[in-house]
Amino acid sequence: MAGEPNCFGWAAHDANGVLVPFKFTRRPTGPDDVNLRITHCGMCHAELVWLFNKLGDSKYPMVPGHEVVGVVTEVGSNVTRFKEGDRVGVGTFVYSCRECEICKDGMQQICDQKVMTYNAYDRDGLGGLGHMAVKFGKAFGMKVTVMSTSESKREEALSVLGADTFVNTSDPAQLESCLAIPENLSMAEAAPLLCAGITVYSPMTRLGMNKAGQTLGVIGLGGLGHMAVKFGKAFGMKVTVMSTSESKREEALSVLGADTFVNTSDPAQLEAARNSIHNIMDTVPYEHALDLYLPLMKPRGHLVIVGFPHEHKFAPHHLILGFKSITGSVTGSIAEIQEMLDFCAKKNVTPMIEMVDIKDCNEALTRMLNKDVRYRFVIDIEKTLVNPT
Amino acid sequence: MAGEPNCFGWAAHDANGVLVPFKFTRRPTGPDDVNLRITHCGMCHAELVWLFNKLGDSKYPMVPGHEVVGVVTEVGSNVTRFKEGDRVGVGTFVYSCRECEICKDGMQQICDQKVMTYNAYDRDGLGGLGHMAVKFGKAFGMKVTVMSTSESKREEALSVLGADTFVNTSDPAQLESCLAIPENLSMAEAAPLLCAGITVYSPMTRLGMNKAGQTLGVIGLGGLGHMAVKFGKAFGMKVTVMSTSESKREEALSVLGADTFVNTSDPAQLEAARNSIHNIMDTVPYEHALDLYLPLMKPRGHLVIVGFPHEHKFAPHHLILGFKSITGSVTGSIAEIQEMLDFCAKKNVTPMIEMVDIKDCNEALTRMLNKDVRYRFVIDIEKTLVNPT
Repeated sequence: MAGEPNCFGWAAHDANGVLVPFKFTRRPTGPDDVNLRITHCGMCHAELVWLFNKLGDSKYPMVPGHEVVGVVTEVGSNVTRFKEGDRVGVGTFVYSCRECEICKDGMQQICDQKVMTYNAYDRDGLGGLGHMAVKFGKAFGMKVTVMSTSESKREEALSVLGADTFVNTSDPAQLESCLAIPENLSMAEAAPLLCAGITVYSPMTRLGMNKAGQTLGVIGLGGLGHMAVKFGKAFGMKVTVMSTSESKREEALSVLGADTFVNTSDPAQLEAARNSIHNIMDTVPYEHALDLYLPLMKPRGHLVIVGFPHEHKFAPHHLILGFKSITGSVTGSIAEIQEMLDFCAKKNVTPMIEMVDIKDCNEALTRMLNKDVRYRFVIDIEKTLVNPT
Repeated sequence: MAGEPNCFGWAAHDANGVLVPFKFTRRPTGPDDVNLRITHCGMCHAELVWLFNKLGDSKYPMVPGHEVVGVVTEVGSNVTRFKEGDRVGVGTFVYSCRECEICKDGMQQICDQKVMTYNAYDRDGLGGLGHMAVKFGKAFGMKVTVMSTSESKREEALSVLGADTFVNTSDPAQLESCLAIPENLSMAEAAPLLCAGITVYSPMTRLGMNKAGQTLGVIGLGGLGHMAVKFGKAFGMKVTVMSTSESKREEALSVLGADTFVNTSDPAQLEAARNSIHNIMDTVPYEHALDLYLPLMKPRGHLVIVGFPHEHKFAPHHLILGFKSITGSVTGSIAEIQEMLDFCAKKNVTPMIEMVDIKDCNEALTRMLNKDVRYRFVIDIEKTLVNPT
């Protein structure tokens, strides 16, 4: 439909979530685009959600990945910030409008017009198949918005194709979604920072949960949790890891460098930790008892949820009688991600990763489901992705 | 036990919560004390909680009331801020240490050593019956802390009476719990400000929910809710009242001056209100569906719980995808209460009250249980409390 495939990756074709080799087509490099050869990609819990269609919104075929790093191969005519050969990264989103109130307030990652890195339609429709996407969309009874950098497409989109809305996206913003990887960060270690790293770094800095000498609590010791411990220590904080499993104690204290460990299955340890923690980073992606943790915080503490549990319960008096808050956060703005990458390079903050070959990515997904990863899988695409053509 | 009773009020003697005339004894006016003749007292939802022992911590006989205003009849030798004849108020607490981290951070209302206005023991024990309180406390197997302004009592308390802890409270702070009622506020209207008013005013100002032009959402149109509407308008805000009952629309818009009403039983109205409200004051004291309200807030919005529901549920993605927070608050510091009283006097912000005779207080409690009050009962103690002696 749109010429010979020009890209190669691994995709899932349905909610079984099995990844297999896949050829597909991307649009030619546009004036504001940066084209890259991907070298590494981290594997995030979100992959389990979308590959297996847990939210009912998955779009197949799906080429997952939003902790992407690589080397620039081509830049559009408007691009001045990057050039061929630069080491760059792409996180959870590739576009935000930068003109709305939300973008201007520095929250572009939740801009209504943002385009996610995968499981999303780009502004020109679907993978370069724009006009078909409009027709399918209308056939499915959907509202269709056509976005284009050219005002000349408006009439065509609305009158000829029958789209409902047209958005002129002629702005030079897109290349901002590309991040520069500082020299002394390895590509493999940089990848997980683009989601796992920024997801904890952003609320820590935005909410003042990064003050030296204060105590940071961390619930959950996975990809996000272990980064929260590392950032906490890099900020000069005391870090308390909380887990229902005594087996995490040694790892938390000796390997990750946390200061304190609270086994939350033990009422005595919970009681001893009351009112000892300034703020808590809650990285657990499933329901758990918030009422165990809220009393451990000092007055005005924030408990920040960064996983995506379906539902939580809590007793409001834990908040009321200490002006505490439960809040949430997701990824970070491009400016925050760049700031974090530079901070990590300067302070030598890196994730603990396990490299996997692309051929083993399905096995890695299974191990993630079983929480058997320490702490992030990174696919070595550069060395192991082989295009059969 | 401690001389002839020197006070007269109405008390409940058990969890039936029936108020009957009651004589009791207070200590002589101490050097830092302010003695007042009470003229009016507001009736708060908390009375229903404690009179009927809903939390299991009620102490009988109980003389309820924490929206107390009156006229100074006597001051202690250290008191310079008030003199006989001054119009003063007392809110939910009568003491805080003012030396701990919490007090120094301006949150004295949750100081560990605070003394509530009722259903609490004063620092010298229980109603002037200190040494018996220690003995009873130990007999009941409790930890007992003796507080005294005199270091000479330490040895006696710990060794002779067997108390567990001694706190020297020799500070000139106590009179700070007394508020000055500005001239152009009536005593009756000032009373409900001391709990209902400050409970919404404090988080509004502390969390920046008082910006002119922004939108304040109010859930629940009772004593607290109607004050939130009035404060919102006084701050120059747009106010949206949300209720499951269409019958509140006219009242909210015409009587209280709200700008918008959302019937939250109507999905179309909920959908139309999405992302339209900066922050929400949630005054409902029982469980309700937070997930209805969280999507109505703009990114970074706070939903502040000021009732005391037993438990709440919510879907975390509502917080995560908009950096929103659920938080809680209770009353305010003495400085905040005075600031609010002065603000109310200046801006003519007053509660809507219904005056009741003391003899009708039990009927008023029943009407409060049936949510039949518009919006605060205030007992006219000056005119209707008759001491039979």
